[in-house]
Amino acid sequence: METATIKDIARICGVGVSTVSRAINNHPDINEKTKNLIMQTIAEHNYIPNNSARNLKRSESNTIAVLIKGISNPFFNNMLKVLEHEIHRNKYSFLLHRVEEQEDEIEVALLLEKEKRLKGIVFLGGYFSHSEEKLNQLKVPFILSTGGVTEKIDKECYSSVTVDDYKESYKMADYLCKLGHKRIAIIAAPPEEECIGKLRLQGYLKALEDNQIPCDPNLVRYKRDNTLDTFSMKYGYEVTKELLQAEKEFTAVFAISDSIAVGACKAISEAGKNIPEDYSVAGYDGMDIAFYYIPSITTIRQPVEEMAEETIRILFDIIEYGSTNIRKDFPAELVIGQSTKSLIKAEM
Amino acid sequence: METATIKDIARICGVGVSTVSRAINNHPDINEKTKNLIMQTIAEHNYIPNNSARNLKRSESNTIAVLIKGISNPFFNNMLKVLEHEIHRNKYSFLLHRVEEQEDEIEVALLLEKEKRLKGIVFLGGYFSHSEEKLNQLKVPFILSTGGVTEKIDKECYSSVTVDDYKESYKMADYLCKLGHKRIAIIAAPPEEECIGKLRLQGYLKALEDNQIPCDPNLVRYKRDNTLDTFSMKYGYEVTKELLQAEKEFTAVFAISDSIAVGACKAISEAGKNIPEDYSVAGYDGMDIAFYYIPSITTIRQPVEEMAEETIRILFDIIEYGSTNIRKDFPAELVIGQSTKSLIKAEM
Repeated sequence: METATIKDIARICGVGVSTVSRAINNHPDINEKTKNLIMQTIAEHNYIPNNSARNLKRSESNTIAVLIKGISNPFFNNMLKVLEHEIHRNKYSFLLHRVEEQEDEIEVALLLEKEKRLKGIVFLGGYFSHSEEKLNQLKVPFILSTGGVTEKIDKECYSSVTVDDYKESYKMADYLCKLGHKRIAIIAAPPEEECIGKLRLQGYLKALEDNQIPCDPNLVRYKRDNTLDTFSMKYGYEVTKELLQAEKEFTAVFAISDSIAVGACKAISEAGKNIPEDYSVAGYDGMDIAFYYIPSITTIRQPVEEMAEETIRILFDIIEYGSTNIRKDFPAELVIGQSTKSLIKAEM
Repeated sequence: METATIKDIARICGVGVSTVSRAINNHPDINEKTKNLIMQTIAEHNYIPNNSARNLKRSESNTIAVLIKGISNPFFNNMLKVLEHEIHRNKYSFLLHRVEEQEDEIEVALLLEKEKRLKGIVFLGGYFSHSEEKLNQLKVPFILSTGGVTEKIDKECYSSVTVDDYKESYKMADYLCKLGHKRIAIIAAPPEEECIGKLRLQGYLKALEDNQIPCDPNLVRYKRDNTLDTFSMKYGYEVTKELLQAEKEFTAVFAISDSIAVGACKAISEAGKNIPEDYSVAGYDGMDIAFYYIPSITTIRQPVEEMAEETIRILFDIIEYGSTNIRKDFPAELVIGQSTKSLIKAEM
């Protein structure tokens, strides 16, 4: 049996397409008998009037593309759900496109823009260090969500919804310092990687400086010739194993993501050490696993759902009302888990 | 500056498009001087000859859609990477489309097929209980990957790459029985949910029966009026809290996914109990977190990368050579972690 279209249903019922649409959408302005006839015809003729159908119908010319670097990072899963929901709620269709680690997201976006007749673009994650000239080639409105941007780019050139990764990372490192830790290792991204890890490393360095703790380069750890996903448990596990084998003294590990922190905890546990008794471990992102791990992991919670909603709100203000570019920083929250302890003896 | 096309580059250099293509692809059959001219022109004119460009160029008519239920389940992240890679390697383009929990994936596929001129469809996850008539409406080749299918459907109607969830779930439950556990709770999916959880529950029930352990309905746990993602840590956490509060005797928990097992472990830990000393916990899927959790979680490892590769191989055999439908079961592996213990005293 062939699938019927809305026009077929209208023809069979002897009504207009808009009447069928009103019946489907439970519009008050329709005769009850007509509505019953339409709904019965729909049931008999295999017509699919669901949301997905409606989303697809408007898809060809009203598409928002979401470009994501590193789809394997579960940090983005919750955001994608909200982005998709908000895009559909605004009667646009949603195109998800993954960008390879070594690809240039702007180049990919320029091609998508041309081929898919996009109305807007969300860049999810990543780190923008492109030239302004290059950004200006994008003809459709775009917004960067939860990523980083080099300071070299004029802020008028783009919209963004982020947390201040530098400031929030500072907050975590400062918290560890204030707990009395002076030997704080950081599991960072490889320096050649253009990613948010750069800002998180800078926040750590500044916090050490402000707490008069000299930075020991031996405690800034990353994987050389890295072939792993940087923001993965395995990366955290392997770098921490190397750290433990290097036998440098440290009392705390700041991992630049929760997945990395999980790997760090496992390496410490396998070495026969306990968290937080022997080593404190802190993460970043506020993912579910930080709360469900044993011990729960002290982290920086990014308000991902709110950020995803705001991303779409700003993008549609630009698309539909021609608003100017906006950059919005959300505050993140230091969530204290069981994985960090104070080294300062309580006064008697 | 406008983005140049391959035709612009050819025109500027006074060569054919195929020569530009040979230069880009490092083809041996090209004059070195011509190649240098072309590469310099490319650099000067903003032309983007990367893989992504090439993938997009062939996208309009050669698209494979991957439909996924529950994109927020990190189980699928690794699979998606391999699927995308294999689809591109076969010179097709990759379209990822999320299906809402309450949507009918065949209806969504029928619409995509029409609107996007697809060449093939991969259904990732989910549980097929559609009528044959409905499946037959799909005009393009399709394959079900890592999902379940009701036995009512004639096997000739579809291709699939799965593990035998019934058999593998049986394997895990039987393993717990053989460790001496007689009071084994299962954290299952809500019975109204059409998902892979059905087969995993049946495997558990059969293993109990074969081990002469009567099934206590009090130990078959799920969330009533569930509003959570079933395959989530939070679901496992909440159901296990209810189980502990119900004060039914049990010594082991079989969670039908690793995420659920993580939540179960956390609930047990918060109740002041230890794993595996007080309760054994087992999961299913073989996700990274099972290995990086403390304690590591005994699980059933699905060979997701191999399954993703085989999915695309079978699909392309059908698309390009008109092969008949094939159903392939992969064996999964029982991976024993630190979260399960034997109740049988070692003989002296």
